[in-house]
Amino acid sequence: MLNAWHLPVPPFAILRGNYLYLTLWLESDDPPEQVMLRAEPDNEELLQAMESQQIGRYRRYHTALALDEGQPARRYCFKLLWETHQRWVGPLGVSELQPASLQQFSLYAPDPDPEWVTDQVFYQIFPDRFASSGGPHLIQSGSYYHHAEGREVKRCDWEDPIESEGSPSTFYGGDLDGIISKLPYLQKLGVTALYLNPVFKAPSVHKYDTEDYYQVDPYLGGNEALVRLREQTREFGIRLMLDGVFNHTGDSSPWFDRHQQHHNGAFGNEEAPTRSWYSFWPDGSTCDWKGFSSLPKLDYASDGVVEQIYRGQDSVVRHWLRPPYSIDAWRLDVIHMLGEGGGAKRNLHHLAGIKQAIREENPDAYILGEHFNDAREWLHAGVEDGAMNYRGFVTPVWAFLANVDNAGDPMALSAEACAEWVESYRAGLPHQVQLRQFNQLDSHDTSRFITLLEGNRARMAMAVVWQFCWIGVPCIYYGDEIGLDGENDPYCRKTFPWHKERWDADLLGLYTRLAALRHDSPALRRGGCKVLHAEGDTLVFMRRYEQEQIVVALQRNRAANVALPLTPMLEGAEWQALEGEGVLTSHSGGLTLALPGESVTLWRGQAKA
Amino acid sequence: MLNAWHLPVPPFAILRGNYLYLTLWLESDDPPEQVMLRAEPDNEELLQAMESQQIGRYRRYHTALALDEGQPARRYCFKLLWETHQRWVGPLGVSELQPASLQQFSLYAPDPDPEWVTDQVFYQIFPDRFASSGGPHLIQSGSYYHHAEGREVKRCDWEDPIESEGSPSTFYGGDLDGIISKLPYLQKLGVTALYLNPVFKAPSVHKYDTEDYYQVDPYLGGNEALVRLREQTREFGIRLMLDGVFNHTGDSSPWFDRHQQHHNGAFGNEEAPTRSWYSFWPDGSTCDWKGFSSLPKLDYASDGVVEQIYRGQDSVVRHWLRPPYSIDAWRLDVIHMLGEGGGAKRNLHHLAGIKQAIREENPDAYILGEHFNDAREWLHAGVEDGAMNYRGFVTPVWAFLANVDNAGDPMALSAEACAEWVESYRAGLPHQVQLRQFNQLDSHDTSRFITLLEGNRARMAMAVVWQFCWIGVPCIYYGDEIGLDGENDPYCRKTFPWHKERWDADLLGLYTRLAALRHDSPALRRGGCKVLHAEGDTLVFMRRYEQEQIVVALQRNRAANVALPLTPMLEGAEWQALEGEGVLTSHSGGLTLALPGESVTLWRGQAKA
Repeated sequence: MLNAWHLPVPPFAILRGNYLYLTLWLESDDPPEQVMLRAEPDNEELLQAMESQQIGRYRRYHTALALDEGQPARRYCFKLLWETHQRWVGPLGVSELQPASLQQFSLYAPDPDPEWVTDQVFYQIFPDRFASSGGPHLIQSGSYYHHAEGREVKRCDWEDPIESEGSPSTFYGGDLDGIISKLPYLQKLGVTALYLNPVFKAPSVHKYDTEDYYQVDPYLGGNEALVRLREQTREFGIRLMLDGVFNHTGDSSPWFDRHQQHHNGAFGNEEAPTRSWYSFWPDGSTCDWKGFSSLPKLDYASDGVVEQIYRGQDSVVRHWLRPPYSIDAWRLDVIHMLGEGGGAKRNLHHLAGIKQAIREENPDAYILGEHFNDAREWLHAGVEDGAMNYRGFVTPVWAFLANVDNAGDPMALSAEACAEWVESYRAGLPHQVQLRQFNQLDSHDTSRFITLLEGNRARMAMAVVWQFCWIGVPCIYYGDEIGLDGENDPYCRKTFPWHKERWDADLLGLYTRLAALRHDSPALRRGGCKVLHAEGDTLVFMRRYEQEQIVVALQRNRAANVALPLTPMLEGAEWQALEGEGVLTSHSGGLTLALPGESVTLWRGQAKA
Repeated sequence: MLNAWHLPVPPFAILRGNYLYLTLWLESDDPPEQVMLRAEPDNEELLQAMESQQIGRYRRYHTALALDEGQPARRYCFKLLWETHQRWVGPLGVSELQPASLQQFSLYAPDPDPEWVTDQVFYQIFPDRFASSGGPHLIQSGSYYHHAEGREVKRCDWEDPIESEGSPSTFYGGDLDGIISKLPYLQKLGVTALYLNPVFKAPSVHKYDTEDYYQVDPYLGGNEALVRLREQTREFGIRLMLDGVFNHTGDSSPWFDRHQQHHNGAFGNEEAPTRSWYSFWPDGSTCDWKGFSSLPKLDYASDGVVEQIYRGQDSVVRHWLRPPYSIDAWRLDVIHMLGEGGGAKRNLHHLAGIKQAIREENPDAYILGEHFNDAREWLHAGVEDGAMNYRGFVTPVWAFLANVDNAGDPMALSAEACAEWVESYRAGLPHQVQLRQFNQLDSHDTSRFITLLEGNRARMAMAVVWQFCWIGVPCIYYGDEIGLDGENDPYCRKTFPWHKERWDADLLGLYTRLAALRHDSPALRRGGCKVLHAEGDTLVFMRRYEQEQIVVALQRNRAANVALPLTPMLEGAEWQALEGEGVLTSHSGGLTLALPGESVTLWRGQAKA
């Protein structure tokens, strides 16, 4: 029998002065003869003997890691030695083999990236669909011809149903002043940061086809409206993140100019000054993003692109970080794809350049990368502060609760497999990177989760509690909180129904309570995370920071009882159930959780110091 | 029951024109409804349905991946779909969860790095100890004062025993002309490439304390001797790799000049032109490598260092790649540690710069990184072509055969755990990177393996066959092939005993046969690799390229029988035992291997086309 406990947060990891004080707890009927901290200052192995003392059934090992040498990402694990064999302790538990270098405990000390991120509750807005000011600048049917769709734009009424036909050219009249009018609503919900889908001038409603990176679309209110939004969000203590689409432009960009409206673009014009800004196939056709001819791919082999997008003194990336816009964060669209020669060549090099430009303008700006799949290569490379956590959160939640993966394929997932997934994905990412991962249930690029659940409100509640309590920063996709539904694009982009009688008030109440709880709970905002129990339909995890403990139990299908031993990680406390109907019984052997079927329960307890 | 077979080599993966033709074989009593290739051109997920046909008990799925888009490292796995669930096939087999992005099959197409490497048999030489020309330039006792050791250098006779006391100042008179004289011996052994420990002017015998990067040490024969060695190795068809120590210099370098012999170095002189080339602690003391005051660390934040080491037109890195030296490869010492500010900051940035400089001089030069531990971060970043494979080969071999890890700690390793180690370490590395991994049994930095084995010749034979047959390029540490022994530094650096009566002729015969076999076997040089069976004391693996199959069976302790089913990976053949006493019996159900205790057996067979 060998059990081990450590988390890269207080009380197990404490940063004080120039040392990181680390504590490992072991319980064993054959204790190791020696326990060593294994660290990697400057990438070279350091083995440092740990001192120990017996405390009841446990042995507590401790040492102090000097921080004057080495990289800010402190990677470490523990090596346990007996006379004839060895074991290791890493974030995935006790193992016979040494953890991979990138699957050790990891902790920034000091933290080089923005710490404010993890304290937020984000809210994602698709600007045309959230709220409308009704102002005279709003788009109207026939305002302009949308070349990519071969039709004039169309303006619907707010209450009109979404139709697939012509959806990129179909507008509902939401705008930035509309968002301003709803800031009191968002503040009451507990939102502290906005993530806006693209707002720069572009012909489509989604605006991923940028025409002018320096102009907020006039139909959304123009640059002045963004200044107003910035001022007002500041009044409400709300941060602002814009969506930067730098892999490609729209084909109406004057740099490309497919429709010859600007008379000097790269399309069909080998002499154009911006010809080298795009890639062309040997036959002269354009390298487009995923074959969409309206989205020609930028070529970062061109100095012009590099200067314009990030390196130059008035680059796009820099421009919006400066007053009067002073945005707090960039969400970078398909960040893993941009690069040279029509592909992703030298991707990390250019992302490092983008990060450098961003940090030069605002050392505290958050850089969020969009990745539909595995983002760890980029997170470990440090070119982004966090990722849209599709792979590490959204997809396992979908699979566990809705039996579907992010490609829409069926996936039956036991709690054991789900735990392996979420725990192994984050293992080795620096703790603070985990805190800055961007956890959503859905987005403008997916079905609404309530729709994947076929309206199952119990499962939706399970997902929402999971989202607000899992390690990372939660982001609500506009309308999720009141039960808005919809299949994938365009149906996940319905207008927000502002008539309260159409709201799921219970769900809104849950979101509001969870947002408030996060703002009150260091464990949820900053704490370590650990799956305590995973079996069949039952998944129990905890968060821990100093003495605060949060336990969340998800129970699919039929009711179950779970026994949790008290350990140095999960300590005895006065437990309070904050959400759900599960019953916790504390006894000398530990805790017993009685979990109703199809339920989620959240307990909070303060361990004795 | 679900079995799956694929290797990233022919006949399973065939590069033809602009397509990669991929074949997956499945055996299942509940075949999937759909099988898809999952690839990542330009880092974005592509799911491509595969066609299939039934062939006997198997279903063969195939598709062609277009190569006109995407990165040269083609990462892929296979997604298997049923009505309610899914499975994945990656290099670690069938799994419930999608393989991590960096644990998929991976294959360069085209291969951007030097293909010649994998066809070599390398031989590592510590120049002072391999062979002596007896020339007048050789070092003598008292030739100079060795400041770091506080004594004059000492010259021993070739037959004198090694002593620990003063070992860095103790010389035996080996030199480059000595190596030249032994090229016929090396050619007969089957060696096709030399890796020399540092040869540049430096006061110590190991020469990791470089004084002048532009001078071959005069006591080794000077630059002219290197020209002679280059000419002669070329005559023998032997490649040449030098050891580049660019993390630190010696303290006698005029750039640093601790002993004030050059009157203008950085030590104690804040006005020195090279002051910024080194890092100093706030108290003015030098940042040294691992605290050795004779090894001050270079600071790559200084443009001077960057220019001198790699970027400038006559940088060190470039200089030796040019005629008349024209070396074929750089081995880069502690590659993961070099960087800025006294640590490894911006390490990958500078390594990318070193690689660029090397490739500019010789696009076909091999870049080998030294890493005592996990090298995957650097291999995936593409800043080196291969790594000294301590973590992926040396240490598991040591643990499995000698019960010790690379820190000298006890490690009991079952075949199952050993297989998990070696297979998971390499999973996800591009196939060609695996082929360029540098597999040794020991080096100048470790005990000789025969000594760790306490002279056990059966285990040594097991290790040698493993080394020559495992995926990667083998490197013989001088003297291993004739049974030279020795504990860690300095005892692993004995002089080569040129009296044949002191050689282990059986061992030399084994090395010679294995080198010859490699030169004759595409499967060993280029083939895929797969552990077929791992249980207790038995480890069986195979190599495969087109129709050639190599099977290697290692049996610790007591004899055992192993049943191997014939499959699309291991096909029926006329088998020939090339090494060892194991007996292979072929029958309708497959193969039975009867393995004697403490044995290794190597079979070769040609599958029917």
